[in-house]
Amino acid sequence: MFGLSDVLASFAINGTVSVVLITLFSIFKNQPLNVRVYFSKWQLKGERVGPINYMPAVCPKGIRRYLNLDAKSYTHVMDWIKECLKMSEAELIDHGGLDAAVFLRLISLGLKIFIPLTVFGFIVLVPLNATDNQLAIESATKSNFTYDSLDRLTFSNISVASDRLWAHIVAAYLYTAWVLWLLFKEYRSVVALRFSFLASQTARQDQFTILCRCIPEDPKESIAAHVDHFFRFNHPDHYLMSQVVYDANKLDKMVKRRSKLQDRVMHIQGSIEKNLTKSRPRIKTGFWGLWGEEVDQLDYYNDEIAKLSDEIIAERTRILSDERSVMPAAFVSFDSRWGAAVCAQTVQNRDSSVWLTEWAPEPRDVYWANLPLLYNTLNSRKLAMGTLLLVLMIFFFFPISLVQAMANLAYLERNAPFLTPIVEREALKSLLQGYLSGQILKASLMVLPHVLMIMTKYEGHVSYSRIEKSATAKYFVFMVVNVFLGNVLVGTIFEQLKTFTEDPDRCFGVQIINCNEPKYESAAAYWPYMFGYIIVALLIKHITLMGLMGLKEAKSSTPFLLPLPICTILFYFYCKNRFEHAFSCYALEEAMAKDTIERASNPNLDVRSFLEHAYIHPSLRSVVVGNDVEAIPMMAQMRF
Amino acid sequence: MFGLSDVLASFAINGTVSVVLITLFSIFKNQPLNVRVYFSKWQLKGERVGPINYMPAVCPKGIRRYLNLDAKSYTHVMDWIKECLKMSEAELIDHGGLDAAVFLRLISLGLKIFIPLTVFGFIVLVPLNATDNQLAIESATKSNFTYDSLDRLTFSNISVASDRLWAHIVAAYLYTAWVLWLLFKEYRSVVALRFSFLASQTARQDQFTILCRCIPEDPKESIAAHVDHFFRFNHPDHYLMSQVVYDANKLDKMVKRRSKLQDRVMHIQGSIEKNLTKSRPRIKTGFWGLWGEEVDQLDYYNDEIAKLSDEIIAERTRILSDERSVMPAAFVSFDSRWGAAVCAQTVQNRDSSVWLTEWAPEPRDVYWANLPLLYNTLNSRKLAMGTLLLVLMIFFFFPISLVQAMANLAYLERNAPFLTPIVEREALKSLLQGYLSGQILKASLMVLPHVLMIMTKYEGHVSYSRIEKSATAKYFVFMVVNVFLGNVLVGTIFEQLKTFTEDPDRCFGVQIINCNEPKYESAAAYWPYMFGYIIVALLIKHITLMGLMGLKEAKSSTPFLLPLPICTILFYFYCKNRFEHAFSCYALEEAMAKDTIERASNPNLDVRSFLEHAYIHPSLRSVVVGNDVEAIPMMAQMRF
Repeated sequence: MFGLSDVLASFAINGTVSVVLITLFSIFKNQPLNVRVYFSKWQLKGERVGPINYMPAVCPKGIRRYLNLDAKSYTHVMDWIKECLKMSEAELIDHGGLDAAVFLRLISLGLKIFIPLTVFGFIVLVPLNATDNQLAIESATKSNFTYDSLDRLTFSNISVASDRLWAHIVAAYLYTAWVLWLLFKEYRSVVALRFSFLASQTARQDQFTILCRCIPEDPKESIAAHVDHFFRFNHPDHYLMSQVVYDANKLDKMVKRRSKLQDRVMHIQGSIEKNLTKSRPRIKTGFWGLWGEEVDQLDYYNDEIAKLSDEIIAERTRILSDERSVMPAAFVSFDSRWGAAVCAQTVQNRDSSVWLTEWAPEPRDVYWANLPLLYNTLNSRKLAMGTLLLVLMIFFFFPISLVQAMANLAYLERNAPFLTPIVEREALKSLLQGYLSGQILKASLMVLPHVLMIMTKYEGHVSYSRIEKSATAKYFVFMVVNVFLGNVLVGTIFEQLKTFTEDPDRCFGVQIINCNEPKYESAAAYWPYMFGYIIVALLIKHITLMGLMGLKEAKSSTPFLLPLPICTILFYFYCKNRFEHAFSCYALEEAMAKDTIERASNPNLDVRSFLEHAYIHPSLRSVVVGNDVEAIPMMAQMRF
Repeated sequence: MFGLSDVLASFAINGTVSVVLITLFSIFKNQPLNVRVYFSKWQLKGERVGPINYMPAVCPKGIRRYLNLDAKSYTHVMDWIKECLKMSEAELIDHGGLDAAVFLRLISLGLKIFIPLTVFGFIVLVPLNATDNQLAIESATKSNFTYDSLDRLTFSNISVASDRLWAHIVAAYLYTAWVLWLLFKEYRSVVALRFSFLASQTARQDQFTILCRCIPEDPKESIAAHVDHFFRFNHPDHYLMSQVVYDANKLDKMVKRRSKLQDRVMHIQGSIEKNLTKSRPRIKTGFWGLWGEEVDQLDYYNDEIAKLSDEIIAERTRILSDERSVMPAAFVSFDSRWGAAVCAQTVQNRDSSVWLTEWAPEPRDVYWANLPLLYNTLNSRKLAMGTLLLVLMIFFFFPISLVQAMANLAYLERNAPFLTPIVEREALKSLLQGYLSGQILKASLMVLPHVLMIMTKYEGHVSYSRIEKSATAKYFVFMVVNVFLGNVLVGTIFEQLKTFTEDPDRCFGVQIINCNEPKYESAAAYWPYMFGYIIVALLIKHITLMGLMGLKEAKSSTPFLLPLPICTILFYFYCKNRFEHAFSCYALEEAMAKDTIERASNPNLDVRSFLEHAYIHPSLRSVVVGNDVEAIPMMAQMRF
């Protein structure tokens, strides 16, 4: 159990660490060499040159390059906190994107939820709990019952079937109403922000393009021609062109290997130029450079690159000329957002297993390996991964507890007697028993997100952003189910698990990792998921309260608590109906308005050339768009 | 409990009644006067003149008009059964529509499911049950335990924890596999039939028209102009025209009253012409014709009609000229099915509570009263009706059991002692106790569909077909929940309820009533619901079997039975994903193909005039399309 001293100690440690980290960050940020790290965006905009401005001119240039010697500037090191807090939301979105801004809103939502509730709790609930005497009675009647001064402030100190429980029921209503009201306002604001963010964006290729999967085979014509004929016939007014997807996995590997060799060559050339090596480095040509003829490294790598380049050209030619390397998927582009919106949001064919259309992800967000999957494959993979997730959820902690039991010394000594002299040493004993078993669990939990990520990739999503959203959702379900399981199957392992999962840092870490990657901007597409998670948390709170009331022999209060989860679920569906389409649909009026504004403001925009090379596999693009001119006539066959 | 004698008696009674009814039907069908009733469709097609052909020429004409005297023709009275069975599905669809054909398929699906399973049951399961001895053991150990010879053939006769239970588990797998396989084939066939039926239909107004609800107010322009501008801007290529919806409820009542009076006038005139009345009938002009001045009925009604016609013209002029009678809903028509398909299946506006578009129902299927409802009203009505349904489901049988208790004699005698001499008479006693209480329950169950229908109307559906589908679904849920409740809360009332709800006639009756009304053709739109009901029935079977296994102390068999419901649910979602869109979406390829074929085969089709008066409130239509020419200039404002 947690005592008051534990809370104070934890508060002191965390407070000190925070102050030290913030101070260190402020000082490092102030050093000339770190300007590029901390002010890259500002620098790109030319708005701020960084702390190098503060340097006194008398300083030697060498030192000035590495150290900020201006004492005056250190008096302002903490100003960034003030600046951050002063920054308007519009500026924030402008600098960090909408994803980052909504993430900060999420944190401030947490503060808005918890600060008033904490105040309310201390003023109303804590005095009510503290002035009751359940714990005193229990410790008087049960011999092995102990409690801490902090426990007296909690719900446990209320007498069985006391009228004071009503205060907690009323508080649950206030709490729920307050959270739902804030969530509603927040959802409305995020939707408005998303709309204005999307409206302010310049033309993007994915606004004009849809992804068509599961293209059926036609014995009479190639896939490229089939796609073209299909969309030319069914979307005659707005269809522009289509780009089929090639199986470029082999090429991809070759291109990556070449670029690795090119990096190595550059590194060696740099070393030679700076005279860092006495003689030109040499290499053995055999397996892993361990044997065989010894040759000049630079020459060897250059030869390899030349050979690989020839192979790449041959492979690219093969891909572009071999009909078998064309996959049953294509990116189809339209001359307007309206045309793309229509095609992405309607059913194309009476058979729902072919010609599946959806919005194309942004080009850098495409997960190429999943594009060629067909309907039945997609379904079976989803089913397989769903089953695996279920199995994993149920059995995840059994092997771990086995490992823990093995790390248990008594078990080790019994089964491996020769280890006894080693594990009996005092230092090793405490290390194994106190530390290692906890670390094994922690490590398993750290592996989990990666396992879920691999599983989600296999499911067949077409973009990194969706893979990450889906993996996060799985992780959330996993944690909720296991915390519940943990409460049912009481045991050390679950106690430990609880402390890890209740650690907010950890949860936020996973959010950040999965949702806040800067490699694409989702325009807060993760918000509906966050909303759902908060609703689930609220429902868990309601169920827990009902359970606690049951423990206090106040089961008759259940009818009074039942409206809470019901209203919460109704609220969820209301918000879903009201707002979620802002994240899943693109209204035709929006599309038309944007098209019209663009036609007026940018009458010369050539949509065709704007889209021409957007959706080509990265390995083919580097060849087509770069200076490998031979490729271009080959690519022409993809346009019509 | 049911004995073998009960089964045989039931079989004899039902068999006799069936034979009598079929014979009577065959004879009546053969009479000249009934040709119009039984052969109306054939007569319209001129394919068959009816049994009047069989008449010998010597018969007096008067008799020949009423009675078929040709003895030879009676030898063929049963041929219609053969003809029916010989009829091809295509002919059936041609004559009865797809709804009727799919309904017959449903019955034949039932036979396909149950005949092989019954055979299997008799060959494999019945011998296994009959050769065990659980019932004999139980009747030997328990004094008040009796059983019938028929009971020995059932599951109850298997010993506790016997290996024979495995046969029932294996049978459950065979049964489920057989049903799912038939369902899959059936779903595929129905989808194919639906597609070919829709493709063979001639142009229908609802293929070109969408219904737009929740039109937002615009202070600057009228609703009609607002709708026109919105769709002209957002669907510039295919938008044709729009017709706003008027609040014509008052007019509707007046038109109905006039047509009632006109019917009465025609009836009186007929009677006078045929000299059936001695003098011209007279009527008192006061309240309910009970007092006041006495006048000539015909003159009085004709005056009333003339007065009403003037009022109708005035009301119609008011409706069409008063902006306040325009409701926030409109029928929007396009020049092609493609244009309508796009608009019906996309989101128009970023705010999901306005500009809601969906396919227009066929004109005669429109439920006009619900068209003007706004988003929040719709949501609150749905919520209110959902809550009411829940309350009704839980509490429906409590008031009935109260009524039943009151019909119980002991209760009556105790609380109304003056009734004792009456209720103690033997005949009345058995009537009250044996019959009346059952009839009260039956009456309550008969009222239920009507209550559900009124509730569903209030929910805000825009067409009769959807109201009926939704009411049927509610009825189904109601029955399932209550049969379950009935099994949990054992009691007489629920025993009785079970016999009613297990009566297939009754269930089929409700299906027919709700789904098979000839006033519109839904192209088997009810099939996915039927599919869902069969799946639910299958799941109930699985749960029941698990319960039975529990009673036989074979709970360890649950893991072997668990895959059954899981596979059934997965199968349901597979079929839903694979086929259901055929009932909810209209693929753009279909729309385009149909448009193209029609443009080629019927190049002169004037879509505008075809759609012009389709979606006008019936009461306004009779005025506009009829000879009330003054109305037409007023209607012109609805076109643009």
